[in-house]
Formats: sequence, C-alpha cells, structure tokens
Amino acid sequence: MTIPDREAVAVTVGQVNGFRASGAAGGLRKQGGLDVALVTSDRPCVGAGVFTRNRVKAAPVLLNMRRLEENPAGIRAVVANAGNANAATGQQGMAYAEATAAFVAEKLGCAPEDVLVLSTGVIGQQLNMEALKRGIEGTLDAAPDWEAAARAIMTTDTRPKLASVSVETPTGNYTIAGIAKGAGMIAPNMATMLGVIVTDAVLTPQQAQAGLQAANAISFNRIVVDGDMSTNDTVLLLANGASEVTLSNETDEMNFRLALSQLCIHLAKALVRDGEGATKFVTLLVTGAPDDASAQTIANTIARSPLVKTAFYGSDANWGRILAATGYAGVPIDPENMRVSIQSGEQPDGNGYVLYDRGVPHSDEVQAAAIMQSPSICVTVDCGVGHGEALVWTCDLSHDYISINADYRT
Amino acid sequence: MTIPDREAVAVTVGQVNGFRASGAAGGLRKQGGLDVALVTSDRPCVGAGVFTRNRVKAAPVLLNMRRLEENPAGIRAVVANAGNANAATGQQGMAYAEATAAFVAEKLGCAPEDVLVLSTGVIGQQLNMEALKRGIEGTLDAAPDWEAAARAIMTTDTRPKLASVSVETPTGNYTIAGIAKGAGMIAPNMATMLGVIVTDAVLTPQQAQAGLQAANAISFNRIVVDGDMSTNDTVLLLANGASEVTLSNETDEMNFRLALSQLCIHLAKALVRDGEGATKFVTLLVTGAPDDASAQTIANTIARSPLVKTAFYGSDANWGRILAATGYAGVPIDPENMRVSIQSGEQPDGNGYVLYDRGVPHSDEVQAAAIMQSPSICVTVDCGVGHGEALVWTCDLSHDYISINADYRT
Repeated sequence: MTIPDREAVAVTVGQVNGFRASGAAGGLRKQGGLDVALVTSDRPCVGAGVFTRNRVKAAPVLLNMRRLEENPAGIRAVVANAGNANAATGQQGMAYAEATAAFVAEKLGCAPEDVLVLSTGVIGQQLNMEALKRGIEGTLDAAPDWEAAARAIMTTDTRPKLASVSVETPTGNYTIAGIAKGAGMIAPNMATMLGVIVTDAVLTPQQAQAGLQAANAISFNRIVVDGDMSTNDTVLLLANGASEVTLSNETDEMNFRLALSQLCIHLAKALVRDGEGATKFVTLLVTGAPDDASAQTIANTIARSPLVKTAFYGSDANWGRILAATGYAGVPIDPENMRVSIQSGEQPDGNGYVLYDRGVPHSDEVQAAAIMQSPSICVTVDCGVGHGEALVWTCDLSHDYISINADYRT
Repeated sequence: MTIPDREAVAVTVGQVNGFRASGAAGGLRKQGGLDVALVTSDRPCVGAGVFTRNRVKAAPVLLNMRRLEENPAGIRAVVANAGNANAATGQQGMAYAEATAAFVAEKLGCAPEDVLVLSTGVIGQQLNMEALKRGIEGTLDAAPDWEAAARAIMTTDTRPKLASVSVETPTGNYTIAGIAKGAGMIAPNMATMLGVIVTDAVLTPQQAQAGLQAANAISFNRIVVDGDMSTNDTVLLLANGASEVTLSNETDEMNFRLALSQLCIHLAKALVRDGEGATKFVTLLVTGAPDDASAQTIANTIARSPLVKTAFYGSDANWGRILAATGYAGVPIDPENMRVSIQSGEQPDGNGYVLYDRGVPHSDEVQAAAIMQSPSICVTVDCGVGHGEALVWTCDLSHDYISINADYRT
C-alpha cells in the first residue's frame, strides 16, 4: 500500500489543452444556483470510468457503462446535473438520460454516443428536462470556468472541489485536472460522488481504464463518510491527447498513475473534509491484520461505527469503541495482542500516543483528550496477528449530519 | 419465520418461585443511582446463555461461557453491574470478574463456580471492586424487587425493561420472567444488551440452551439500534425447577419456547423503543429475497443505514435511500421488480401505502408524510426475486443519539 505524496497538486484548474468546462443554473435545485456542468473536448477522447457497485444503479450510470464499452475512444463531452439523481426512475429515467446526451450532442455537432451523463441529488423523481436543457444551453453560453463546473455538481457540499497536476516528461508536459463532489452517502466502492477528470495526455483505452482503477483503489475507495453506498457513484477520465505526449513505456505509465493518484487522493480527502457535518478529519491506519483485505474490512468497519464516529465528534479518546468495532468486523484478531494509538495530524508515523497496549489500558485522559481536540487525528490500530495493512480517511458523525439528512428533501 | 403474538406478556414481574432479585447503589456510576443487581435462586438452576459474537469479549462473557459449559446445572446466582463493562481489561479484568463471583458465592454459601457475572458500561477501565462489593452487600440487604434489579443494569436506558409470562399446563403452571437493558450499541448478534431470564419450570440443560437460542434468534437477534455490536452482550436463562412442571414431550417444549419467545420479543422491542435517542419504532419486513438469510442481510443493511435512519427521524418517506441500501447489501436483487410500501403501526399486513412499484415511483408526498409522522412505522421491501423473508425492529437516528454518544463518558 503506497500512498504517494500530494505536493504537486494544485487546488485550482487552469487551461487543459482542448478541454472546456463551464457551469450554469437551469433551475433543477430548489435552492437555486448552478446545477448543470458541461465538460467538452474539441476532439474525441479516450474515456474510462469506475462506477458504483450498488445493485441499484441510476440510469446515467447504466448509460455510461454501455457507452464506454461501445465507444471508448470517441467521447466528446460529459454533462452533469445536481438536484436530481435520475435513480430508481425506470425506463422513463433511461429515456431522459439518453435525451440529455442527445441534446448535448446536437449542440456540439457530435453523436449522442459521444456524450456521457452524470446526475446527483434526490432519488426517485423524474428529471425536469426543460430545466436541464435550459441549464445545458446556459453552460454553452457561459465563459469557461472549471470552478463553476465544480460548483454546479455540488449537493450538500459546502465548497467546490478542484485539483490539477502537471507532469513533465522528456517529450513534453501534460496536465491532469479534475472536479468532484461528495458530502454524504460516502463509502468505499465508492460514494455519492461524482468525479470528472481530464488530461491532455495521449492514452490508450487500456491505459486510461487501468490507471483510473489503480488510482481509484487508493483514493475514492479509501474514504468513508457514513458508509452508505450511492446509486450514482461515478468517476470518469477523459484523455484527449492534445499534448501529444504518449505513455510509451512502463516508467511513463507509472508516472501517469502516480500523478493521477495524487490528484484523486487530493480530491478524495477534500470530500471527507467536506463530509456532511464533519468537524474532524480522521486518518485510520490498520496494521497487523491477517492480510491487506482483512485490514481494509476492519478499517471500514471502524470508520462506519456510529459509536466511534460520535466519540470523535465528542473529542473522546474512547478506544474501547474502536476495539469493539474491530472485534465485530468478522476478521480473526487477538484482543490481547492489539494496540491502539492516536496522534494529531494526517500522517501516522508510528509515534502516536498509546491508548491500549496488549490488554492494558494506557490512557491518560487529559493527554488523550488534548490530541482528540485536534481537527485532524490519526488513529493506528494494530491487530497483533499478521502483516496486513490498510488506510482509510473518514470523519466524525455530528449533529449537523443529522440535520442535513433529516431535512434534505424538505 | 413465525413471530408469536405477545398477548400474554405482562410488563411487571411478581414472584417467581424460589428466585429473588434486588438492586442497590454501590457507587459505580458517576451519576449515582442503582448500579448492582443480584438475582439468586434458593436451589441450583439449570443455566443457559447466548453471548456476543464480537471477537473482543469482556471478561464476564468469557467467564460465563466457561461456567455454563462446566457447571450447567448448578447455577445459584447472577450478579450484574452497570457503569463499567469490564471489557478490554486484560488479566486484571478476568481476576476481578472471578473475585466478584467469589464474593457473591461467599455471601450465599455456594461455590464461586455457581455464580455468573454481567457487566455493562464503559470499556477499558478496571472495575472499582470496593464499590462493587458495597453494591453486592446492598442487594442482599435490599427488599426483593425485580424492578430495582432492572433499573440497576440500566446505562443510557431511560426506563427499566421487565416482562413475565405464565404458562398453564395440565400438570401445573410455571412462570418465565426477565429483565433486560439495551439502549445503544444494539445490533443483531446481539447488542450492548444484558438479559436475565428466570423460570421455575424444570428444564434440562439441553432444553434451556436450545430454547434460549431459538427465542433469541427471533427476538434479540432481530433488533438494530445503531449496528454496533458490543463486547458484553449476554442473555442468560436460569431454570430452578421450583414449579416441578417438566417439559415431557414435544408439545410441552413447543409451548415453553413459544412463551419464552414472547417474553424475549417483548423485551427486544422494548430495547428498540428505548434506543438511544429513538423517536420512531420501525418494523422492517423484507420479502421476495433469494432466501431468508439474504433477506436478513438486506434488512440489517437497511436498518443500519444512517441515511435511512435520519430520513425516519425527519419523517421523510425517502424510499430512494431504502432502495439504495437494499442495493448495496451484497445480495442479488432486481431494482426493476422491487416494491417499497409503508404503513403506520407495528404489524405489516400487506396493505401498506406503495412508494415504489417495479421501477415506478408512486409517492404522493403528502399522504406518505402523514404515515411517516406516526411514532410506529412498518416498512415492507419486496426484492422481487424469490421467497426469502426477514423482519427486524429498528429505530431512527436522531440528534439525541449524537448527544448521548458524543458525551457518554464526559
């Protein structure tokens, strides 16, 4: 498990050769504001995608899966809307997703098959197509603006998420840039999250798909807000080749994956930081599990535990709840050989303050509470049985999460 | 899946031949009040138990498992304390659990092996043995009082849970009575829950254990508050035979199990009703799953979803979240053939108000909201693929849950 540094990632997106992004207000959200984003390329792109594993998949998810399979090198645009997830909407919902793509295609002068569609928002209501078309027209009239596009896909997000990274190579430079939205319903595999990533590198469909999957595995699949998995989760990657920089050997591919991973990690952590009601950013490292997959299961179980999450909210170093969650993860562990430690910050370095060490509580409540007051906390749980490791990023469970989700539709 | 009626269950416990229960204040809880309960029998009992499946088991859980295996027909007492779970306390914790039993045994004039021990409260702190012994002495001095015993095991419970049921047979009558505590950390298999059930029927160890397991499977294992599984969950059954009524044939055994199940269901539902911060009692029936086990998995997944639970809290008929949770339960289902309906009350009868029917949203928001305002709601989810069924009882996720658990130790 190698998590690359994120030093080279910028939190803004400038020009990416051949791409254009904009946002507009079509009237799909009750509260108003930007709600339609359009990302286009002046030439066909290689496209790749990773999608929710939820068995209830929204219409645009099913549409994109089909399109990327049939047309992986001819993508021209991604249109995204907030306010309505177009999920659990049956055949009518699929017809609307197709009509959305067709409307964009007509405006751009390409085929409907060249357009991908993203939706986020309430489940189970049919799209207001009039508002959506108005929004699409608005994006075409609007000035290019990646931040506006990032804002237009926000739901309960409180701020837009953007990132970009430049990669220098002997044969030239290329850029990777992306926008994402998250907030609630965030779980591994993946989240109510949408991400659109673009690059002007030259990628084959295989390079794009494999690279996106690898980056996704160590970024968006490592975040937990509430453990609910959405019907719409999608991350798309479009590569238009405008830089003319190819990935011609293993080193090139490795550098691309590293940069893409940096970008995705940056966006993934930004989603957790802006998790619904989140007041704490928690880096959870599980070590000493029987294997990496078991470690991941334990980490996800801890990160989803309401009792652990409310303890974080209360700045309570309640390691007993962490032990209990570890114990019910379904993985063989040895409570008498476990260790739990905490430290402030985002980078566990093995020098945390030990709360529980092989059957013996060690906690000085005052010292522990001081660490727990920090807005960023690392928790290391050593299971004491093997060499499996996993790292997840999560947040606390606060009053605001309840308020946001009890009132979301009203 | 047969859930027996609960018509015969009383919410009080009177005299049960040969048993004595009392509660006292030893000073184990910061907030004061009753914190030690003692249930004794004037003769040896057949004992049975069901225990947490958490791999981190509290010392008293391990002690009771051993005692019931070695001494299943010689149990004389159960001593229980609140305020401290004696979990994750290592060898010292086990020594304290054994010392607690020995202290009670000395007072009663029996062997330490005849005494079972229950603890609930904070994890990871060593017991205050002085306070516990003071409490035990208090219970011996106190007047017999089942309600005091039920109060003495409360943690974040707001009210004591008691129940009793009488069984008439051709050869005489016997009684089954019990106390329980729950509140948070409630999940199937099982809960932060303690239960002590007594009967004056004559049971063999096999009849006691098999009966308890069968009753537990359709009661305490069907409730979800927050999905956290505790380190201490235990339900004990003691049968002292004082009524001299034996279970001498299959009908007798069936009637005993039915009565025991009624009692356990009553107590289990009482735990959900008093779940931490609960404002709604939700009966969730999953039908049409590939098999019963799959149905149970789906029901548990829905019942644990923070988004579903907050929607209940907000009286929001957000069936999309129910669909989404069903979709990520890991069971093959057919979203286009699913149905979701709701009705008020606790008994789903197939005439619920349909929110989603095979790909088509049906919800009249006003009518749906009126049902969701009810303090008791039934949700029926038909998965549309098979004949598997499961029923769970759960509650909503409210602001008070957050307050209770963010502040529990402070």
